[in-house]
Amino acid sequence: MAAVRPGAVLLTIGDELLLGDRVDTNGGWLAAFLSAAGFRVQMILTVGDDVPAMHSALSRAVEVAAGGVVVMTGGLGPTTDDVTREAVASWLGVPLQEDPAILETLEARFRQRGFANLPLPNRRLAQVPEGAEVLPNPAGTAPGLALSLAGRGPAGGWLFLLPGVPVEMRALMEQEVGPRLARLPGPRPAPLASAVVRTAGIPESALAEMLEPLTGGTPGILVQYRPSWEGVELRITASDGPDALEGFMSRAAHILEPWQYGGAESSLAGAVLARCEAMGWTIAVAESCTGGLLGARLTAVPGSARVFLGGVVAYANDVKVGLLGVEETTLAAHGAVSEIVARQMAEGVRARLGATVGVSITGVAGPGGGSPHRPVGTVCFGLADTDQGWVSEQVHFPGGRDEIRERAVQHALRLIDQGARKRIRG
Amino acid sequence: MAAVRPGAVLLTIGDELLLGDRVDTNGGWLAAFLSAAGFRVQMILTVGDDVPAMHSALSRAVEVAAGGVVVMTGGLGPTTDDVTREAVASWLGVPLQEDPAILETLEARFRQRGFANLPLPNRRLAQVPEGAEVLPNPAGTAPGLALSLAGRGPAGGWLFLLPGVPVEMRALMEQEVGPRLARLPGPRPAPLASAVVRTAGIPESALAEMLEPLTGGTPGILVQYRPSWEGVELRITASDGPDALEGFMSRAAHILEPWQYGGAESSLAGAVLARCEAMGWTIAVAESCTGGLLGARLTAVPGSARVFLGGVVAYANDVKVGLLGVEETTLAAHGAVSEIVARQMAEGVRARLGATVGVSITGVAGPGGGSPHRPVGTVCFGLADTDQGWVSEQVHFPGGRDEIRERAVQHALRLIDQGARKRIRG
Repeated sequence: MAAVRPGAVLLTIGDELLLGDRVDTNGGWLAAFLSAAGFRVQMILTVGDDVPAMHSALSRAVEVAAGGVVVMTGGLGPTTDDVTREAVASWLGVPLQEDPAILETLEARFRQRGFANLPLPNRRLAQVPEGAEVLPNPAGTAPGLALSLAGRGPAGGWLFLLPGVPVEMRALMEQEVGPRLARLPGPRPAPLASAVVRTAGIPESALAEMLEPLTGGTPGILVQYRPSWEGVELRITASDGPDALEGFMSRAAHILEPWQYGGAESSLAGAVLARCEAMGWTIAVAESCTGGLLGARLTAVPGSARVFLGGVVAYANDVKVGLLGVEETTLAAHGAVSEIVARQMAEGVRARLGATVGVSITGVAGPGGGSPHRPVGTVCFGLADTDQGWVSEQVHFPGGRDEIRERAVQHALRLIDQGARKRIRG
Repeated sequence: MAAVRPGAVLLTIGDELLLGDRVDTNGGWLAAFLSAAGFRVQMILTVGDDVPAMHSALSRAVEVAAGGVVVMTGGLGPTTDDVTREAVASWLGVPLQEDPAILETLEARFRQRGFANLPLPNRRLAQVPEGAEVLPNPAGTAPGLALSLAGRGPAGGWLFLLPGVPVEMRALMEQEVGPRLARLPGPRPAPLASAVVRTAGIPESALAEMLEPLTGGTPGILVQYRPSWEGVELRITASDGPDALEGFMSRAAHILEPWQYGGAESSLAGAVLARCEAMGWTIAVAESCTGGLLGARLTAVPGSARVFLGGVVAYANDVKVGLLGVEETTLAAHGAVSEIVARQMAEGVRARLGATVGVSITGVAGPGGGSPHRPVGTVCFGLADTDQGWVSEQVHFPGGRDEIRERAVQHALRLIDQGARKRIRG
């Protein structure tokens, strides 16, 4: 039987959340983090930058969490519309005090950016409710705060205050709050065993159909599908623990292999770069409708310089001719969105940069520029390879401009990946 | 004085939301819908598929909404884990009854899909708490429900139950709930007047310090700051309506002018392209550490082809030399991350593509590659212009790889924008 899981309540603060100006992604991220850490998240509560509303929300949260943890995000910025610090201090009945160490860190940070003095509003970031432990923010200026709730309710527990900027909130959870949660006394059941598999090039329903015979026959296994422009992410959860998960994963491996490129933290670009590096390949890109997005995706991966040399963004046709050597007669006869132009772009960029592989994208991303013959969403790809010649493809993608461009980049990465796999298999 | 705005509370239901498996987008969408309809959204509350938790949430919601509306989404599906119908009926103290009209619609729908009989779980969709009005679902099977709260609390009001599938929830809000809200008796103030201003190149606290004298002296004006890697977005809300907003905006205009580039829907890339197009300029880019991100940002704007010609992603030094004409001796003497190399990159790409303006980015995005002399975050920029020669700059950005690259792109866009503004002023 599963042990009792301690409770957790999330409070997300911000008028912009109540106006619907921003979707609250912090609540979902925190819920996943705390669930994985063995807590039972019982409630997510959003209120505005308003002291009485926060008082009432804090009281309710502590009651529901019943000795577990309350994580509160947002409203810790420097400006006067951010009043979370004040609300928490007055709810606890303690004064706010200026923390000299925070002040010093802030002053150093602003000096480094060329400010002679700390801008006055930023002094507010150093205000701390009496008794709070300061959690240094590795990604921004507003520190996190940890407060014991012992004596504040029937069952004690902990309150963590974090800034609402997602990258800062996440860094603080991972580096500061996570280790403190692990040290809390009391029963802590083993977390559910779960794994994430990322796939590209196959729709959700086709994956579900292939996995159905396996999932139906395996009680305690839950497979969730999350489709996006980048592909379908599978989350597999085994309520019977790691062995059950491992058993299922080994049975599913041969089904997933052609589409899988990695786990939760991986990107297709990272997987492609790793495979190319292992083979000693270098890559050059020639982009038209994606305008640099493929290069940007590849170079988002640290260390990509070992494989990625660079490329040409040939948005105008003159650039396709002048910098890539596409023939003017070919452009005139077939148009810029054609497999033969894609092929010449890939060969041109490969040769000019001296790369092992050249890959190209040219298409109609819309909203204008479509024709009955080549509607918006039509994209041509080329892959040129020193040894194996070239391939070209034409694909039609659904969606608007952003979606078409993102899908085209993912498709180009899959083309490189397939080329590399083919070479490995000989 | 502003009229009293009726309150609204949102309840989103689902174990998957508390596990963090799915981000709740319904709360934000509903918040925007109700705010635009003149309601003051006071709270968004998420609980699981659990009857006691829903009872407690309903009681709290009705108390906070105080005579306004409560919109509850999720947990109306056919499977037994969906218990919202049961929870609402028992909270109201009324029985569930099978609605013959819903049953008939469901049977017809499933016959049309080739089912001889309605699958048994789907009969649950016809269960309705006594006294509820049925709202037909134009996009799915589970209908919405409207329930009067008269006599259920101190102030009455309405409770709407909607399915959690976003496309169905939205269709029901727009077609069924929206018209009912418009017919509710009682005062309905005009929606709050608000405006969004996007700025780049100035920190949140510096903006706040400049605007403080204005906001302090203008009651009923709320300025909210939302910093991101792209700059700071201001939302100005006037509780006294459009005239008050306009008055404030005209007083703030001269303060914001150097940093402002547009409103809610605008991007700095879009503003830069529009300004360049008005001047008949064309743009070419040379990117090293950003790997194509600047080109991608510019080409995300439809119609960018009228201004943006293309560029070179010169990630490897050989590409800087071969495709951009950077001198090898300069590279050897000053390193790739130097203002003189940035200048040569900008001049090279401008000349090779025949553009009016060439802009370049070369920097250390990290995590590796830093040195005491040029730490991670150091980025050099060049701007070459047919008429006015060139400028170069060196900047140090905080943050990790993604943040440094995003900030560098935004800085390069600001450089082009400043060049264009200077030219306009003569």
